[in-house]
Amino acid sequence: MGTRHRDEGVTMAERPLVVPNPNDPRLTRRLKGLDQDRQPVLSDVVVERPLTLYLNGQEIVTMMTIGDYPECLAVGYLLNQNMLLAGDRISGIDYDEEVETVVVRTERVTNYEQKLSRKVLTSGCAQGTLFGDVLEKFREVKLDRTAVLHTRWLKTLLREIGTLPSLYLVAGAIHGCALCAGDAVILYMEDVGRHNAVDKIAGYMFLNGIAPHDKIFYTTGRLTSEMVIKTVQMQIPILISRSGVTAWGVELAERAGLTLIGRARGRRFLVLAGSERVIFDADAGEDAGA
Amino acid sequence: MGTRHRDEGVTMAERPLVVPNPNDPRLTRRLKGLDQDRQPVLSDVVVERPLTLYLNGQEIVTMMTIGDYPECLAVGYLLNQNMLLAGDRISGIDYDEEVETVVVRTERVTNYEQKLSRKVLTSGCAQGTLFGDVLEKFREVKLDRTAVLHTRWLKTLLREIGTLPSLYLVAGAIHGCALCAGDAVILYMEDVGRHNAVDKIAGYMFLNGIAPHDKIFYTTGRLTSEMVIKTVQMQIPILISRSGVTAWGVELAERAGLTLIGRARGRRFLVLAGSERVIFDADAGEDAGA
Repeated sequence: MGTRHRDEGVTMAERPLVVPNPNDPRLTRRLKGLDQDRQPVLSDVVVERPLTLYLNGQEIVTMMTIGDYPECLAVGYLLNQNMLLAGDRISGIDYDEEVETVVVRTERVTNYEQKLSRKVLTSGCAQGTLFGDVLEKFREVKLDRTAVLHTRWLKTLLREIGTLPSLYLVAGAIHGCALCAGDAVILYMEDVGRHNAVDKIAGYMFLNGIAPHDKIFYTTGRLTSEMVIKTVQMQIPILISRSGVTAWGVELAERAGLTLIGRARGRRFLVLAGSERVIFDADAGEDAGA
Repeated sequence: MGTRHRDEGVTMAERPLVVPNPNDPRLTRRLKGLDQDRQPVLSDVVVERPLTLYLNGQEIVTMMTIGDYPECLAVGYLLNQNMLLAGDRISGIDYDEEVETVVVRTERVTNYEQKLSRKVLTSGCAQGTLFGDVLEKFREVKLDRTAVLHTRWLKTLLREIGTLPSLYLVAGAIHGCALCAGDAVILYMEDVGRHNAVDKIAGYMFLNGIAPHDKIFYTTGRLTSEMVIKTVQMQIPILISRSGVTAWGVELAERAGLTLIGRARGRRFLVLAGSERVIFDADAGEDAGA
């Protein structure tokens, strides 16, 4: 099923390979409500559903998700929890929509019973659980020092992300994450939990052999410690958010040598770590000197 | 340490009993960054730190939190995970800032080893973990049918919440929750994880004997399934958010008989469940007929 390091020239992508499908009837539901004037109104809301993940014989976790790209979510979750390793061969992925389960099978025999009994809750719009050894692995990751971010790419990326098909625009209550190469968005995923959107991207990258080393990761959500940890684990050297950061997020980014950019809106942004990868070549444009 | 059902007339509160302290130097840090024009800028960011929770002899979880009100967070977490029961007597709470631990001691002997090995991850800006029996208990809760929400209270509440001391205004990357009685805010808590803010409120209510049955719960975050479950568990009959909802959140609210109000901004809002508690008596005011 491919490895993490083959790159199929996706940096050439004209448009994202993967985006949400706001027209998928499974993803939203139209509900009746009352407005402030007691008038009946119809409101489209996101549907979250359980998905129980098995790795080989073992039940790992039940996730709440909008339910698109379940195979990517399953594989990405296992990768980001170090239950699936970069060298692993996946022998099968069986998704059963009926019973809301996804089973990932690997050639390697796995048993994470002990690991499953020890978790650290994390903060923010985050998955809320990380296993201790994830933090250990975090310390070993070496991010590509040659990767760069041209600030002229940023405005293009933010504009493109703003125009992609989005459940957020239809129903709100959702987070989005994007994988970018240069000024092109390769993947865009959304979910009720931002952590799910991240995991879907990690899973797609693994299943399709997309190299992380020269990529840029974007999230609508806050740059909490867990977002930094996951980005580093995915070996993506640059993380951008339109939202704010936490001090520990910045500290972890500095430790890992991750380039961290917050509050990215329009042409404005704030480089909080790893500024050596940032090439300030944006045309100041209409609001120059702002 | 009080029980859940004594009410010390807090509905009379002139101002909130508890609010964040934006001036607490432990809660934010000033970081150096570069802006889009490569100019050095200082930015205040929220500090998240680990807090390891023990119940009697047993390590329960490590949470990432801004660190204010650790005793409330500890007790509220245990309550919302059904590890602390409404009738329990707390014999002591020891918070050690140095080693970042909080130990809750109960007269009842506790052992949740088995329970700790089985979790369900939930979505959204949520704690991310719930134990199976929480969902079971959810089905048993009976919410007060006599509680009401006058829509004229809403504008007052939203305005007051907007003017409370807030780390969000200083540093962003944070969520807020408020406990309200009538048109008065009793408690306002913030944290990097909204789930922590909820748990701090639950803990404060338990420790101070604040009755939930006639209260209103407000959150800045989305009305996901977990927010609904926690509100119901806390036996608060009315949940309001300025953000959107998920379909399962609405479904759970209907099942539990919870009054659910989303997208509450200014005088606008959307009643999505439990409209029988809502008394539409707001003065349409300046934007009448909007």
